[in-house]
Amino acid sequence: MSTVDTGSKHPEANRATKTASEPKGALVSKGRHAQGVTKERLSMSTVDTGSKHPEANRATKGKPPEANRATKGKPPEANRAQKKGAAMDVPALVEQAREGRPRAVARLISLVEGASPQLREVMAALAPLTGGAYVVGLTGAPGVGKSTSTSALVTAYRKAGRRVGVLAVDPSSPFSGGALLGDRVRMSEHASDPGVYIRSMATRGHLGGLAWAAPQAIRVLDAAGCEVILVETVGVGQSEVEIAAQADTCVVLLAPGMGDGIQAAKAGILEIGDVYVVNKADRDGADATARELNHMLGLGESRAPGDWRPPIVKTVAARGEGIDEVVEALDKHRAWTGEHGVLDARRRKRAAGEIENIALTALRQRIGDLHGDRRLDALSRRVAAGELDPYAAADELVAGLTEG
Amino acid sequence: MSTVDTGSKHPEANRATKTASEPKGALVSKGRHAQGVTKERLSMSTVDTGSKHPEANRATKGKPPEANRATKGKPPEANRAQKKGAAMDVPALVEQAREGRPRAVARLISLVEGASPQLREVMAALAPLTGGAYVVGLTGAPGVGKSTSTSALVTAYRKAGRRVGVLAVDPSSPFSGGALLGDRVRMSEHASDPGVYIRSMATRGHLGGLAWAAPQAIRVLDAAGCEVILVETVGVGQSEVEIAAQADTCVVLLAPGMGDGIQAAKAGILEIGDVYVVNKADRDGADATARELNHMLGLGESRAPGDWRPPIVKTVAARGEGIDEVVEALDKHRAWTGEHGVLDARRRKRAAGEIENIALTALRQRIGDLHGDRRLDALSRRVAAGELDPYAAADELVAGLTEG
Repeated sequence: MSTVDTGSKHPEANRATKTASEPKGALVSKGRHAQGVTKERLSMSTVDTGSKHPEANRATKGKPPEANRATKGKPPEANRAQKKGAAMDVPALVEQAREGRPRAVARLISLVEGASPQLREVMAALAPLTGGAYVVGLTGAPGVGKSTSTSALVTAYRKAGRRVGVLAVDPSSPFSGGALLGDRVRMSEHASDPGVYIRSMATRGHLGGLAWAAPQAIRVLDAAGCEVILVETVGVGQSEVEIAAQADTCVVLLAPGMGDGIQAAKAGILEIGDVYVVNKADRDGADATARELNHMLGLGESRAPGDWRPPIVKTVAARGEGIDEVVEALDKHRAWTGEHGVLDARRRKRAAGEIENIALTALRQRIGDLHGDRRLDALSRRVAAGELDPYAAADELVAGLTEG
Repeated sequence: MSTVDTGSKHPEANRATKTASEPKGALVSKGRHAQGVTKERLSMSTVDTGSKHPEANRATKGKPPEANRATKGKPPEANRAQKKGAAMDVPALVEQAREGRPRAVARLISLVEGASPQLREVMAALAPLTGGAYVVGLTGAPGVGKSTSTSALVTAYRKAGRRVGVLAVDPSSPFSGGALLGDRVRMSEHASDPGVYIRSMATRGHLGGLAWAAPQAIRVLDAAGCEVILVETVGVGQSEVEIAAQADTCVVLLAPGMGDGIQAAKAGILEIGDVYVVNKADRDGADATARELNHMLGLGESRAPGDWRPPIVKTVAARGEGIDEVVEALDKHRAWTGEHGVLDARRRKRAAGEIENIALTALRQRIGDLHGDRRLDALSRRVAAGELDPYAAADELVAGLTEG
């Protein structure tokens, strides 16, 4: 529980932290008094003492059973983060995140992963700080070199002096663990760079899922002063790809040898990419892949003059080849979206999705509060037995909600 | 529009079809009068004339803007299915599906894909017909041979005289198109077998997503008399894996050479598998993979006597080797779940998820009905500008819903 407990002017928010007995001195930073201090990279090692004070635990204990169920099966870190969430000093934490302190950023993203009740307060504080970051989504089939490309882009943006955040949206799927492990190795070259914040985010078993969590994590990085946020989807399921497609610019990566895959998948790929990258371009078939893609993009819906035509860039990300050209393509797309009102439209759309997902998750929790699990249990028993259809059951479930 | 327009006793449901002028004779089957007729495999070719009658189109036109938005970006088939949905004779269709007619089954699953408003009526009619099928989920990383294994399992179950349904849950992700193409080739050997119904289901851009659609498609296959339903997830994202994990039995497939992958992903894999298959067992490293997996399963939570210990079966699915052992393992698990109340518990849990997802999708639509898109647009504009945080916006969005 020894986190950031100074600098807050809001005594109420601090109570749970203050009343919990905690060891002093471990990585306590000075909240808003530290403004102007060099943005040093703090050690990410934290001290989790486990408060014994009942007050500090209340927020966790008082949760509806729904919320408790959601944490089941999550990795232990997520549970720990949620427990900690009960004792967070939000104003201080937000202030520290604003200064770009990685530890505060980490804590806030953990609150997102843990679906903390404090997020409401966090997001209210972050709102005026957001909107400055350029959000780039990267997606593509396994094996095309997504994380190598992400890492190369980080290098390029750092050379240009930009602060970069990386959000690796993942483990939704238990099958992407291997890739993530590899990512960490590939990303390690940036570990000591204070201008880079790298985070992989897991939302496995989460109430609202990735669609709920990812935009809030992006908000945290945005408010923390990241000028470029690279959102890399490790999984390539429905939710994951949608997140990449909702970025300011969506990069679709391919590699030679996909063959029929491109052909079959063209509709989906043509829809979401703003910039296409054919990685591993030193391999056989890279030209053919680029040509085929080019052909298909040309066959797509006819574009009016001034419309964006997604460029295709060939790279060998592992050697950094072609990465400057990718950055150039991103810059061009960013400029184009700004000039044509597309950027604003996309951000409104992203915000709309965010609002809807938060609203639905809240409604789901309210249903749980109204009826408790027993109501749903009784209904699902009847549905499983074939006595009731799921629509009629859903009607009964929401009836109380809309009546009052 | 020339589909099934006889056999219904419910004139109201028929009106839209009847008033639409339509060509006669093309594939008109006799609804419930056809009971007892051989379950012939009807040609899947349909006639889509596009009704000019306003009545028939009303259900499509009168939809809230939300529902219209969801169909944007979908493949043309999905839109066509939805349009057809307006003119469906549900009782006749359900009766024909019950008889196992593939065309009726296809139409009903298209209604699910298109999120048709008629699904409410369909599911009410199907409810008493469900619960007979044994639902097996198959999942695993790309390249492990999921569809080859599925096809081999179909062969095995057909030898045993069981009616089999296959639901390939997919294209969520634009990157799995290639795999699906391959699947179709692999599955083609079953195309002429009237005891097999194979369907790949796309829910791209769908309101409620896969979690909403897949259970309803399973209901259709269940009601259609499939004794075994194999649910293969082509994508391996969050939603896709969850669907497999919610089956009566969940099969996790691996292949040699995953190496570190297993180690890193073990937590997730150990959670969801009831039966593990190491496919491509003729390749180097198969024994090592099986051994590693066995070791990890042994290290998992300690099992009480009588608890299920997931078996590991080695297969070469392409040659049918080991498939009988997989079937045996599935039978054992099915028996065990029945004896220990696990089957009922899983089905209740699946039903609970289904109810919740339908309820939430309904609530989302109701929010759209209440406010229209303009309300959400205005809120998302303010959130994108940083004037409002997404939680406060969500509060405003749902306020009208719970007040009145």
